[in-house]
Amino acid sequence: MPLFGLVHMRAWASLFGQLLRSPRALCIREVHVHSQVAEAVLTSQLKPHQEKSNFIVKTPKGTRDLSPQQMVVREKILDMVVGCFKRHGAKRLDTPAFELKEMLTEKYGENSGLIYDLKDQGGELLSLRYDLTVPFARYLAMNKVKKMKRYHVGKVWRRESPTIVQGRYREFCQCDFDIAGHFDPMIPDAECLKIMCEILSGLQLGDFIIKVNDRRILDGMFAVCGVPESKFHAICSSIDKLDKIPWKDVRHEMVAKKGLAPEVADRIGDYVQCHGGVSLVEQMFQDPRLSQNKQALEGLRDLKLLFEYLTLFGIAEKISFDLSLARGLDYYTGVIYEAVLLQTPAQAEESFSVGSVAAGGRYDGLVGMFDPKGHKVPCVGLSIGVERIFSIVEQRMKTSGHKIRTTETQVFVATPQKNFLHERLKLIAELWDAGIKAELLYKNNPKLLTQLHYCEDMGIPLVVIIGEQEMKEGIIKLRSVASREEVS
Amino acid sequence: MPLFGLVHMRAWASLFGQLLRSPRALCIREVHVHSQVAEAVLTSQLKPHQEKSNFIVKTPKGTRDLSPQQMVVREKILDMVVGCFKRHGAKRLDTPAFELKEMLTEKYGENSGLIYDLKDQGGELLSLRYDLTVPFARYLAMNKVKKMKRYHVGKVWRRESPTIVQGRYREFCQCDFDIAGHFDPMIPDAECLKIMCEILSGLQLGDFIIKVNDRRILDGMFAVCGVPESKFHAICSSIDKLDKIPWKDVRHEMVAKKGLAPEVADRIGDYVQCHGGVSLVEQMFQDPRLSQNKQALEGLRDLKLLFEYLTLFGIAEKISFDLSLARGLDYYTGVIYEAVLLQTPAQAEESFSVGSVAAGGRYDGLVGMFDPKGHKVPCVGLSIGVERIFSIVEQRMKTSGHKIRTTETQVFVATPQKNFLHERLKLIAELWDAGIKAELLYKNNPKLLTQLHYCEDMGIPLVVIIGEQEMKEGIIKLRSVASREEVS
Repeated sequence: MPLFGLVHMRAWASLFGQLLRSPRALCIREVHVHSQVAEAVLTSQLKPHQEKSNFIVKTPKGTRDLSPQQMVVREKILDMVVGCFKRHGAKRLDTPAFELKEMLTEKYGENSGLIYDLKDQGGELLSLRYDLTVPFARYLAMNKVKKMKRYHVGKVWRRESPTIVQGRYREFCQCDFDIAGHFDPMIPDAECLKIMCEILSGLQLGDFIIKVNDRRILDGMFAVCGVPESKFHAICSSIDKLDKIPWKDVRHEMVAKKGLAPEVADRIGDYVQCHGGVSLVEQMFQDPRLSQNKQALEGLRDLKLLFEYLTLFGIAEKISFDLSLARGLDYYTGVIYEAVLLQTPAQAEESFSVGSVAAGGRYDGLVGMFDPKGHKVPCVGLSIGVERIFSIVEQRMKTSGHKIRTTETQVFVATPQKNFLHERLKLIAELWDAGIKAELLYKNNPKLLTQLHYCEDMGIPLVVIIGEQEMKEGIIKLRSVASREEVS
Repeated sequence: MPLFGLVHMRAWASLFGQLLRSPRALCIREVHVHSQVAEAVLTSQLKPHQEKSNFIVKTPKGTRDLSPQQMVVREKILDMVVGCFKRHGAKRLDTPAFELKEMLTEKYGENSGLIYDLKDQGGELLSLRYDLTVPFARYLAMNKVKKMKRYHVGKVWRRESPTIVQGRYREFCQCDFDIAGHFDPMIPDAECLKIMCEILSGLQLGDFIIKVNDRRILDGMFAVCGVPESKFHAICSSIDKLDKIPWKDVRHEMVAKKGLAPEVADRIGDYVQCHGGVSLVEQMFQDPRLSQNKQALEGLRDLKLLFEYLTLFGIAEKISFDLSLARGLDYYTGVIYEAVLLQTPAQAEESFSVGSVAAGGRYDGLVGMFDPKGHKVPCVGLSIGVERIFSIVEQRMKTSGHKIRTTETQVFVATPQKNFLHERLKLIAELWDAGIKAELLYKNNPKLLTQLHYCEDMGIPLVVIIGEQEMKEGIIKLRSVASREEVS
């Protein structure tokens, strides 16, 4: 039986709806943020009355709690990313946080040392997952799935030396989209690049470019330049540093540390400084040395087709064929790509650099490594660097002084009178049961001012006020916190 | 420049919207489910051409992948649970998957052996979190937060002997809601019970009851029955088994194994077989022994107040004061509760038993264990047993033969002609850019029948068909897969 017979509960939603749609009531209010002590280090005692074993209350090195403010930003960004994945017909998959240790070995090259192992407590040897790609390949092989378009949002763990200022943590979130299956060339690959463009444009992070290359072109280039095959991998990882250090330092590393002949290094130098659009692909077809290499030719043919599709998708001008793009991971076999944000002069002044915000490529051999008969399932995919995107958006909000509501409460139940707890409880239960987001203070007799301050602090747009007068008249007062307008 | 000048892209959404709202087009279609090999064990070779080190491709013991079908069910249930938490004004928090090992010690009593430790790879000693409550208490103490209403959805890990048939895994999801802070008694506690009722009713799992007790009443009861204080804990854990084994077996365990005097056991027996509503609380106030115990009296007074609030919330008839409810965890200090589903005869025939689906209680001392000065922050909270709920819903869907769509694709781009890839790509990019969920086959020249079969398999309601005829006329055909109606 409703407390206020005159007001039909069904009418609540529409009544509030009207008031909430008014722009003044909707404005985002300032909220009190409890202190964000990122690495609060407190010397503490586990059992104050027993042992005096001091210990420090903190999160593990390289990890952090995510505050309600951060969670709101994350949820908005993830909703947008997942929305795009769904727009392209992907299914959602989840895998355990840890895998059998042997599933992860020999997949990450020199990065294998960064894998977190679990303690041997009897039973299997386990490791925390390092990315979402290897578990996906394991899933496909284990379930004999030959074709799948899936996305996966989840945490991964890497024991890196944490450089927290750059937004790199030992625990971080990945958002992956992958297409597995035998298809006609470059159609799924082009869709992956389209998805990256849709997400980066949609998030309004500023101008960006996606560098594209192909592992086969890289290998072909090394071969025609005269790099011994045994040094392909070492030279590839030197090339990978070109986005951070200048060519002359990379050249020095290749010659002095990795024993490459200077003239070979110079030949590589001519190539890796090239970047451009589809015309560069044409130019490379004409290159007398590269065009003699079978692998390089295959890569170039695919890139040409890729650019054809990217033009149809209307995103060709966002893509740059860049012979210096190498990508660190071992498992790539074909086209590789990496999206970088372009700093505008204004942003550069803030000295807030981010670099790569999305990346991926084709890995046709990984699933076969898990299959008993080595059956291959070709795959291509992408990973959105959401942690970097979170940092950028958080940084921007900090700079702009923009405050975020961390709750969605629509209405607060208040009273100016003492001994009105029962009426407040009965009324708020009616609101909850009608699906309305409502709060009250957990006090028997709170002051009206305390209640209204709470609404202002939390950005709650509406207050329902009940007191003796209202009870007598069989009404309630509905008040907009921002405008102070009242309706009975 | 749009491919089809006659059709304004802005009109897509409304056009599709109209067709999609027709009930026939909306019906859930059967989908092809790739084989769900829960524990597919394949003998495999890591490097077929190098070593012959056989290994098994599987997930770690007690863990599993979650298929797209399972993810759809989970997401719906989690949305509903989180929606309720938000309705009650909670903020979202996240904490790392692992904590410093010492944060978890001495929190879980005899269950501490189930904690997953990480390998010592240099640096700190770490453990995977065992629940979301201890990390919350650690967060409050570390950040000196005195007041917070938060929810947390995340995975936790326990090295239990997996009895997978009952839906218990070593990795599982928890959904917690907690209220921290000094407030007037029983108001937040009553809200926790209201939330449990809202969620369990909302999920339509059938009839349920929430058992309520208080740790202080339990301790008082043990004291007045003559249990030596040193045996409180052991006897409490015997009592905890009463929902699984009958009283005479519990009594036997207490007397024969735990050395309790038979007359003491019988006195306990008189109490723990009592359960009822608020009248039982009144009855216990009159109990000549219990009413002499200070702790028990405090507990009874709080329970009386709790029932007053539960009546105002309209949920008192769902609550049963049950003196046999003990709850396993060490950190509870006051009211405790546990929701159980009541089996209807029809369901019982399916022999699918679940038991507890939500639980919680008051823990006023946990935050103080992390505070250097032992400052306490009283807390009360609840955890929804979502894994059990997932199992129930999945089981029901299996029984009913109800199939789930795992993608949300609204429209498929098809062609009856060869050499129409370019047109398809250009059109689908327009759809994506207009925010429409669209797919095509990654083939240069797919057969029309193959394309239409894909739509039926995936439950895609609409197909856009383009061919030479349509190009000439400057139109496209829009076809409803279910009804085969066509619009130009």
